[in-house]
Amino acid sequence: MKKKVNKKVQASRLKIIPLGGLEQIGMNITAFEYENDIIVVDCGLAFPEDDMFGVDLVIPDVTYLEENLDKVRAFVITHGHEDHIGSLPYVLKKINVPVYATRLTMGIIENKLREKELLEITKRHVVGFGDTVRLGSFSVEFIKTNHSIVDAAALAIGTPVGTIIHTGDFKVDYTPVYGDAIDLMRFAELGRKGVLALMCDSTNAERPGITASERTVGKTIDSLFQELRDTRIIIATFASNVDRVQQIINSAHKYGRKVVVEGRSMVNIIETATELKCLNVPDNTLISIDQLKNYPGNQTVIITTGSQGESMAALSRMADDAHKKISVGPGDTIIFSSHPIPGNEKAVTNVINKLLLKGADVIFEDVHVSGHPCQEDIKLIYTLVQPRITIPVHGEYRHLIAQAKIAKELGYTSDRIFILRSGDVLELGEDHGNVKAEITGKVPVGNILVDGLGVGDVGNVVLRDRQHLAQDGIVIVTMAMDRNGQLLAGPEITSRGFVYVKEADVLMNEADLIVQTAIASCPPGRNFDWNRVKTAVKTALTDFFWKKTMRRPMILPLITEID
Amino acid sequence: MKKKVNKKVQASRLKIIPLGGLEQIGMNITAFEYENDIIVVDCGLAFPEDDMFGVDLVIPDVTYLEENLDKVRAFVITHGHEDHIGSLPYVLKKINVPVYATRLTMGIIENKLREKELLEITKRHVVGFGDTVRLGSFSVEFIKTNHSIVDAAALAIGTPVGTIIHTGDFKVDYTPVYGDAIDLMRFAELGRKGVLALMCDSTNAERPGITASERTVGKTIDSLFQELRDTRIIIATFASNVDRVQQIINSAHKYGRKVVVEGRSMVNIIETATELKCLNVPDNTLISIDQLKNYPGNQTVIITTGSQGESMAALSRMADDAHKKISVGPGDTIIFSSHPIPGNEKAVTNVINKLLLKGADVIFEDVHVSGHPCQEDIKLIYTLVQPRITIPVHGEYRHLIAQAKIAKELGYTSDRIFILRSGDVLELGEDHGNVKAEITGKVPVGNILVDGLGVGDVGNVVLRDRQHLAQDGIVIVTMAMDRNGQLLAGPEITSRGFVYVKEADVLMNEADLIVQTAIASCPPGRNFDWNRVKTAVKTALTDFFWKKTMRRPMILPLITEID
Repeated sequence: MKKKVNKKVQASRLKIIPLGGLEQIGMNITAFEYENDIIVVDCGLAFPEDDMFGVDLVIPDVTYLEENLDKVRAFVITHGHEDHIGSLPYVLKKINVPVYATRLTMGIIENKLREKELLEITKRHVVGFGDTVRLGSFSVEFIKTNHSIVDAAALAIGTPVGTIIHTGDFKVDYTPVYGDAIDLMRFAELGRKGVLALMCDSTNAERPGITASERTVGKTIDSLFQELRDTRIIIATFASNVDRVQQIINSAHKYGRKVVVEGRSMVNIIETATELKCLNVPDNTLISIDQLKNYPGNQTVIITTGSQGESMAALSRMADDAHKKISVGPGDTIIFSSHPIPGNEKAVTNVINKLLLKGADVIFEDVHVSGHPCQEDIKLIYTLVQPRITIPVHGEYRHLIAQAKIAKELGYTSDRIFILRSGDVLELGEDHGNVKAEITGKVPVGNILVDGLGVGDVGNVVLRDRQHLAQDGIVIVTMAMDRNGQLLAGPEITSRGFVYVKEADVLMNEADLIVQTAIASCPPGRNFDWNRVKTAVKTALTDFFWKKTMRRPMILPLITEID
Repeated sequence: MKKKVNKKVQASRLKIIPLGGLEQIGMNITAFEYENDIIVVDCGLAFPEDDMFGVDLVIPDVTYLEENLDKVRAFVITHGHEDHIGSLPYVLKKINVPVYATRLTMGIIENKLREKELLEITKRHVVGFGDTVRLGSFSVEFIKTNHSIVDAAALAIGTPVGTIIHTGDFKVDYTPVYGDAIDLMRFAELGRKGVLALMCDSTNAERPGITASERTVGKTIDSLFQELRDTRIIIATFASNVDRVQQIINSAHKYGRKVVVEGRSMVNIIETATELKCLNVPDNTLISIDQLKNYPGNQTVIITTGSQGESMAALSRMADDAHKKISVGPGDTIIFSSHPIPGNEKAVTNVINKLLLKGADVIFEDVHVSGHPCQEDIKLIYTLVQPRITIPVHGEYRHLIAQAKIAKELGYTSDRIFILRSGDVLELGEDHGNVKAEITGKVPVGNILVDGLGVGDVGNVVLRDRQHLAQDGIVIVTMAMDRNGQLLAGPEITSRGFVYVKEADVLMNEADLIVQTAIASCPPGRNFDWNRVKTAVKTALTDFFWKKTMRRPMILPLITEID
């Protein structure tokens, strides 16, 4: 509040402020602000980029919310994927406001909060589809959608300046496995009443056509089960894809196979989904991993994590002979019921190669459908909702641009399409019946890196050092000097990650001479300048190693002062 | 020779020994040995895996060739791609035997040898299609094929035990841009005479159907040029794809655009191809980059490197605003005439996003065809050649297995299909009219890492250190002690890539105490054990940091001894 000087002027406008999730996959979080009220849609994390060495995950900078703490009314969550809920355990520590979500979404959130001992202190409200929640000047209606996780919701956000529809991640599935099809009728009704802005999932906006129903995967799985009568089946998929798991269990039951669930996240979600009756497991179907040996392979199925080639996941451990209870070989068929997420292609292919090398059969194509809308699905939503303006969300810039192109095909002029960047403040209001929409400012946003228990203590300096160390290693020069710079011991050179020292005698001996010469160039005396000798050593060694090896190790001269 | 004890027994057998290239993409090199003769087909490099930090490229271990130096008659090269020629400049230093290749292939090899000052000392023989070279007990016929580089050849290797056909990388293109279609007639003739073994490209063996002609891309490019009348065109493709460049130049000429070639490798190959008349550039079409400003954008085309998102390539520099002479913006259309190679998806997508953000248009789909045979193409070659046994080559294990499946569909029984691993020695002979083929041994193979000027000096120890440093950084503890272990100065803690020290006072102060306690646990005295205090410091700090941060930085205690 303290930062708001011209509050009155802006009183009649809605602000939409994406704090993450634009121009990137993941870390979805968007603030909606009207006068004294802020609600936040989703609170996701992103997975680290390849050059973020050692980083476990990335969460959003929520300085803007912290600065407006007294305004924040709630987190409203669209569905239970990490890129929409994963930052909650971190952000709720600073911004402890109630969380609204559907049943399974809340179940998954609660698992997370329990792990971080935040469950007790967090107010949680489970919302049903069709229910509307009042939050200050906002109302939020949860609309049934379909997605690669059960209980996904779109949000109809009622604001004093008009209705915003936020689709969340979704697909159009007329024949979903669990629950109803996406509530297209409600989208149409809202469209008829008038929608100010549509914020629609862009992930698949480059793909023509429609996204196939989850049930088509079920049919594929069923026919694979019918074919594979002689082998054990190991099927890897996303832990959170409860519908996929359901269909695997259905086929297993039909063909008389017992099911083992393997991988911590898979076990957790299946437990939660079963408790909430989102998953229906016939009696005597699940067995424990220890019971596996009591059944012939062709009477069992193992549902496992690791479909993305994640190095610590159950399937990768099986491929590496590092799984304590399951070993893979001839007589096994491994089915990847998944697509590699961009960036994971090589990891997945490595696991496939290893499994094939063990003599197992591997099926890795066409046992998956996407959870996001393709171009024709996006057009359907636009046509039902007919928003006055549109704000493509969820995707990298290329995906947002692709949705913008679709909107243009549908007749939306450029002034009705807003491609935002994270941190942009889009203000929306009415002006004599016309929508007035403009980007009026920027709030701080960014990536907070989580490494182990540290949140934000790995920043650019540390990352740059890690990148440097990874590239060419480190060379440390230690020596002892008195306060006048008289060398008392050393210099001694130690290196790590630079060259294999045992076979680089000549190089390292020459380096010794280079260092000695550099030190000699800084004669001792009163007011001896430590930095001068350090710089001399650093420069001389850097030049020397570059000339000899074309590498630039980090050079670290460390002087111990002896009184 | 010295290692051969049972030479007589093996005298009548051919050995096929892949020294690389199996179970991996790249680093193709295969030795064929009969009695006192060895010929080597290809001598490629591989690009480093993601966890090979700081490594520039990977070359094969050729110990086996070095140990049999007097037998090695020649390198016979199928085509001019890095994964088939890239190691020559390294391997020829140790094994200086003549190199046989077709015209453009040799042109590219010569560029490489010139750079490394090996041109003068290397015997080179340019071979025409249909020509046969005699090399000891071997004859090698070069057969015209098609591929994503001009002048690619398959090899018919005549040996005393029968003919081996090695396809190299190839595709079946009935309407190639330059030169003739693949010489299917010759494959058929050889098949009719009898082929002992087929070694066929597996890269696309998982893909159904056929690979489209390079000319289809030309049509796409032409229609894009027709459409894009108002913008400058920047088109990124593989430097070595001379046919692609030819088709771009053709369209440029047709629509009255001047052509700029950008990127060092692109410039080099175009020069070589033009000299060898593999590329036909109409007069007054090429202009220098400095002349670009003299023409309106829509009368120019820039052909550039960087289609794989390589960070230092010309296109990436344009996307990063780091290109000295070309800046990209609205009014530019960038065409990716390429597919991301597995592992490069994210890098390519980053470049696409950056270009879009600058307001340029980007076209990245369907302006490329593969240079490798799909399933029906592979079946065609099998049907023409009808080998007695087959040895799938060129590809990861999954691709070799996919080709084996195709062979099985064609009626080849498992005993006729040999999936080799690098280093396997496959011996082939005749036994009363039957083929006798068996894996009889293993020769040393492996990855030699090239980092800067160092070849092989980065091994497992250095790589492990780099991985460790990348993950969690390093903490160095320096101190000075006398010979009895009496602490004279320090301890002092320095870290890099671990935490941002300026904001981690508390942690580092506690770490100081931990170190002091560890040192105190090793009281000074005669026969003081330096390793004991180092181990104490290391263990105490490792435990402390793990407990506090869940990170495991490399801990390096360095003691300076003062007399």
